[in-house]
Order: sequence, then structure tokens, then C-alpha cells
Amino acid sequence: MGQKSETIAVLGAGSWGTALALVLADNGHHVRLWSHNENQVTEINQFHTNKKYLPGINLPELIVGYASLSDSLSGVETIILAVPTKAIREVIGKIASVAKNPFIIAHVSKGIEPGSLMRITEIIEEEMPKEFLSDVVVLSGPSHAEEVSLRHPTTVTVSSKNMEAAGKIQDLFINNNFRVYTNSDLIGVEIGGALKNIIALAAGITDGLGYGDNAKAALITRGLAEIARLGTKMGANPLTFSGLAGIGDLIVTCTSVHSRNWRAGNLLGKGKTLDEVLDNMGMVVEGVRTTKAAYQLAKKYDVVMPITFALYDVLFNGKNAKDGVDILMGRGKKPEMEDLTNILDERHD
Amino acid sequence: MGQKSETIAVLGAGSWGTALALVLADNGHHVRLWSHNENQVTEINQFHTNKKYLPGINLPELIVGYASLSDSLSGVETIILAVPTKAIREVIGKIASVAKNPFIIAHVSKGIEPGSLMRITEIIEEEMPKEFLSDVVVLSGPSHAEEVSLRHPTTVTVSSKNMEAAGKIQDLFINNNFRVYTNSDLIGVEIGGALKNIIALAAGITDGLGYGDNAKAALITRGLAEIARLGTKMGANPLTFSGLAGIGDLIVTCTSVHSRNWRAGNLLGKGKTLDEVLDNMGMVVEGVRTTKAAYQLAKKYDVVMPITFALYDVLFNGKNAKDGVDILMGRGKKPEMEDLTNILDERHD
Repeated sequence: MGQKSETIAVLGAGSWGTALALVLADNGHHVRLWSHNENQVTEINQFHTNKKYLPGINLPELIVGYASLSDSLSGVETIILAVPTKAIREVIGKIASVAKNPFIIAHVSKGIEPGSLMRITEIIEEEMPKEFLSDVVVLSGPSHAEEVSLRHPTTVTVSSKNMEAAGKIQDLFINNNFRVYTNSDLIGVEIGGALKNIIALAAGITDGLGYGDNAKAALITRGLAEIARLGTKMGANPLTFSGLAGIGDLIVTCTSVHSRNWRAGNLLGKGKTLDEVLDNMGMVVEGVRTTKAAYQLAKKYDVVMPITFALYDVLFNGKNAKDGVDILMGRGKKPEMEDLTNILDERHD
Repeated sequence: MGQKSETIAVLGAGSWGTALALVLADNGHHVRLWSHNENQVTEINQFHTNKKYLPGINLPELIVGYASLSDSLSGVETIILAVPTKAIREVIGKIASVAKNPFIIAHVSKGIEPGSLMRITEIIEEEMPKEFLSDVVVLSGPSHAEEVSLRHPTTVTVSSKNMEAAGKIQDLFINNNFRVYTNSDLIGVEIGGALKNIIALAAGITDGLGYGDNAKAALITRGLAEIARLGTKMGANPLTFSGLAGIGDLIVTCTSVHSRNWRAGNLLGKGKTLDEVLDNMGMVVEGVRTTKAAYQLAKKYDVVMPITFALYDVLFNGKNAKDGVDILMGRGKKPEMEDLTNILDERHD
């Protein structure tokens, strides 16, 4: 979009990191795509593909694979951090050990750490020595990587404590296929992205039970209300949850059979236990960890979260999935807006 | 749910009227299901089915078909009005001509009348002589009739100027499969239900263009924001649009291939003209009328509604569907929350 070309390190060559590298390269930037997997780096540099994560997509020469983290960061000012949520502390530690100058770190991960109950920007700030960290930005929104790599229209939102830094990330990524909005509500953007995985798990369960679209839409709507309730207590703007990082991301996740969280919920709804589901998936299901963290947050902030609590009982206390959903449906006669109005009142207190 | 059995007239034996008749009968009420089609009435009373609209469903004997409107209303106090939006003025006129006592009329239709720009409760109040109208209630929410008839979990919301009347309708319908919430924001519930059909049309267009889930989620999210912006100017509570009659209904409509509005949009996205689409569908596409009404409302209330305006140009000014969507994507760098924050500020002025 007219701004000058920059060299950017994208850490993590999964589907989302690679798709974001493509957007940056489309905008004329030089991208160093770091992976801990040397075969993957070789594939990127020799064949200009990343078949496991983005089959059928050719990577332009502006994207260069790096196996050495230190080399990938040399002379770079901007890092796009696209590693799994669980790996963030470790990777930040490695960045700190080779850092020579301060970085803007824009993370694109979703989750809350159980125990510490920290958001991802908080984890990054804790792990990264201050002299090497100029700003932390989050990029979030409804975005299947496959569709981004096909240049299908996609919208995301960026946020930061320092909106100038968010604006810089917006400038790097924005183009006609990839619309980047800014939102100054950092807490809301991170909480929305993290907690939507809980609702995706629950939506998978209702689908697994064969309950249909009405039940799923109700669950998404009521789930959004309880996410907003918690987020607002934590300091978020309730309206962020009606935006791209809230309902937008929730819709994409809950209506796509590609979502890992939805698939895990679907298996639970069909009667599998959590252990069977995790074995079957063979990979991390972020919503399971996030459910534990959200349960702890709800207790800490004293917020009523019936869907989260029911899911927690199904995941960790062996409750039958059908019983969990049926209890939610039988909650008595209630005014719909009671919860939401409370949120608004609290915000304007 | 324990309250005493009542005799209720359900006017309109399409899929939604028949499904609601089933819910009432499940709760032990006597239902008079009126249809202007005598063959359908005969089928209901002889075979206890309504195959065209709810194939595979048996109707209990508590549901009796009526071909005479006058007979169906005799001695009844509560009317469930389930006729097409376009037919409401005519049917209310007929009710008025045979009325002998005041009724509570609960309508379950969605739309805004182009020209008059009236909501459905306003149309009912205008057409029905005051002495025959005790209260008007709306029932709305994410609810495919087929799923309700299969007793799958479903949630809806009821609203009225008189929340006691809304509570009465809640009591008649509520059971363990069919959860009825109340919401005192009548304007928001009616506007949300009507305007979501515009977004369903637009979502169908992006799907027809092959743009994928990211674009559709963005469209739903931004569409919700502009609906909320208009609704708030008209006096609605912005949070209603985050509830069952807003985002809930929008999700069901935009993610279901059964939605007429989505299907019409899909054909437009594939390059058909509006005339070809309407010929092909062979039935009313409510979202087309509503787009015209919303366009007029946006002008009247001076509200920016880019999705509605783009859709209006596609429907009525021969604009190419792809150009319409591409213009939406190219709207420049914007803070996401500007619109939403304005809504909240206006509400609290």
C-alpha cells in the first residue's frame, strides 16, 4: 500500500504463520520464516512450498526459510510470533537470548494460561527483558489460514497498549484482500480470541449430540454473553465482543468443520471421553486448556458462566455431555437482557 | 409447565405456524390452526399431517385445522399470527371484520414495510380497531421450524410494550425443548429480526462469489454493527443486537442453506439478476423488500450502512455483485470500534 519495504521475521511456519508471511510478501516485504524443523526450511527454500500446512500454495521468493532463530532476527525490528500458545514462554526465552536490539512483537495466538491466568501479551512482557521489547501487539479475527493463502477477502483487528505500534502492524499487513482494523481494547481483543475456543468446543458438543442449528445459534449467542460478562469484569469494552475478535471469530470457528476445537467437541458430543478425544486428535486442543483457565477466571472475578461451567464438568469431572446441555436448557424463565444490561451498567458505573 | 390449558388460534399453517402449534399442543393447549387452503385443513384433520411444510411430522389431536377464520377465533383470546409479512394488513383486516372480543396478538413475522417504514407491531396497531386489541407481542429468535418440530433445543425471545402480555406468551410456549426469554426492547427485537435478512442476502452473495468463511464472518460482524447503528437511532437498545433476536437469528440464517434469503443471495453472487433469482425461487424473498425499507430508513435517520447500500445497488441499480463486495473490502484504514463506540455514546447521551 505504498509504504517502504521492510524485513520482518515470522516465527512459526504453521498454516497461520505461513499465510501471514504470504500477506507480507504480497505487500513487498522481505520475510524471514523461521521454523525449528530443518526439513521444512529446506522445503520452503528449495521448492517454495509448505505442503503440510498450506497444500497447493506457492511461496514467493520474498519468503526465505530460516532454521536459525538468531540469523532470522539479525537486523530485524518487527517479529510476527505465530507459535503455538503453549510454546510462547519458551520461544520468547530463546528470542531474548539472541536479541541485540528492541523488537515490536506482534503475536497471533489465542489462549489464557491456566494457573497464572495471564493473557499472551502479559506472558510476553513477563518473559522478554524490557530493553529488547519496544511494544507488544495482538492480531486477531475471523481468519482461516487456507482462505488467506488463496487471497480470499479477510478482515482482522490489531490492538496494543501503544496504538502507534498497532498502526505500524496494520500498515505492514493491510491490502485489498486483507483488511486490518485497529481496536484500542487490548484486553477485549485477547479475551475474545481466547474464550471463543470454549464456545467452539461447546458448539461441537451440541452438533455431536445432533441438536441442530437452533441449539448451536443459542449456544453461540449465550456464550458470547458470558464471555462479554467475564471480559468486562477484567476491564474489556463489552462492544469488542460484538466485533471481529469476538463474534466474528466465534462464527468462523463454530461453523467450520476445520476447527480443532469444534472437532474435539463433536467427538465429546458423540460420547467419547476427553482422553479418547485427545488421543484421536493427536494434537493440542487449545479450548480444553482455555476452559480450565476460564473456569479459574470466573471464580476469581465472581462471574456467572453457565456454559463454561457445564463444559468444565464435562471435560474434567466426567459429566455426561447430554446432561450438561440439557441442564443449560432448563434454567427457568429469564429476561434475556438481564446479563447484558448488567454488563453495560458496570461499564458506565 | 403447569399452567392451565387454553384454546389458542394459530393463523397461518406454513412451517413456522405449524411448528409453533406443535409446541403449544406439547404444553397441553388446544390449537386451532387456520389456513386459507381448504385441502391443507382437510389433511390436518384427516391425516394429522402437514406434509408440504413439515414432512414426516405427526400432529397431535389437540391441533385442529380450521378453514373458517371466524370459527377459529370464536371464544379465543390469544392469536398467534404466522402469516407472510406481506399478508399481514389483509389478514388483520379480516380478523377485525369477525372479531367479537379483544385479542392478544403475538406475531412471529419479520420485516419492515417499504414506504410506511413501519414495524409489524405498528402495522397491527394501525389496522386493528382498538376495542379488539388488548396487546401486541412479537416472538423472534434463531429457530428453524423443522428443528422445533423435531423437539430439538431452541431458544426464542418475546417482547411487547406490555411485558405482562409478553410474559403470558412466554408461559404458553415455554418447555424444556423450547426456551422462551423476555426482552423489553420491542423496537430492537423487531428491527433485529427484520434486518438480519439483509445480511443473509449479502452472506449468500459472498458465498456465491466463492469468497469463503472469513469474508462471510466479516460481513456478518460488520452487518450486525450497521443494524445496531440504525436500530439504536430508532430507539432500540444496542445490546439486543447481541442477543437471540440479533446475532442469534443472524447466525442461523447466514449459515443455513435452507434460508430463502441466503439462497437468493447465493444466486446473485453466481451472476444471476434479481429478476432471474425471483423467477427461480418462485416465492417471496423477504430480504429484498427489507433492503428497500432499510435503505429508506438509513436515509431518514442519516445512518451510514455500507453493506445495505451496496446490496441496494446490486438489487435495484444493476450493480455487479462482485464490485459491490470489493468496494466494501476497500474502505480504507479504520478503527473497528468507531461505529460501535458511537452507538454506545449516543445511547448514554
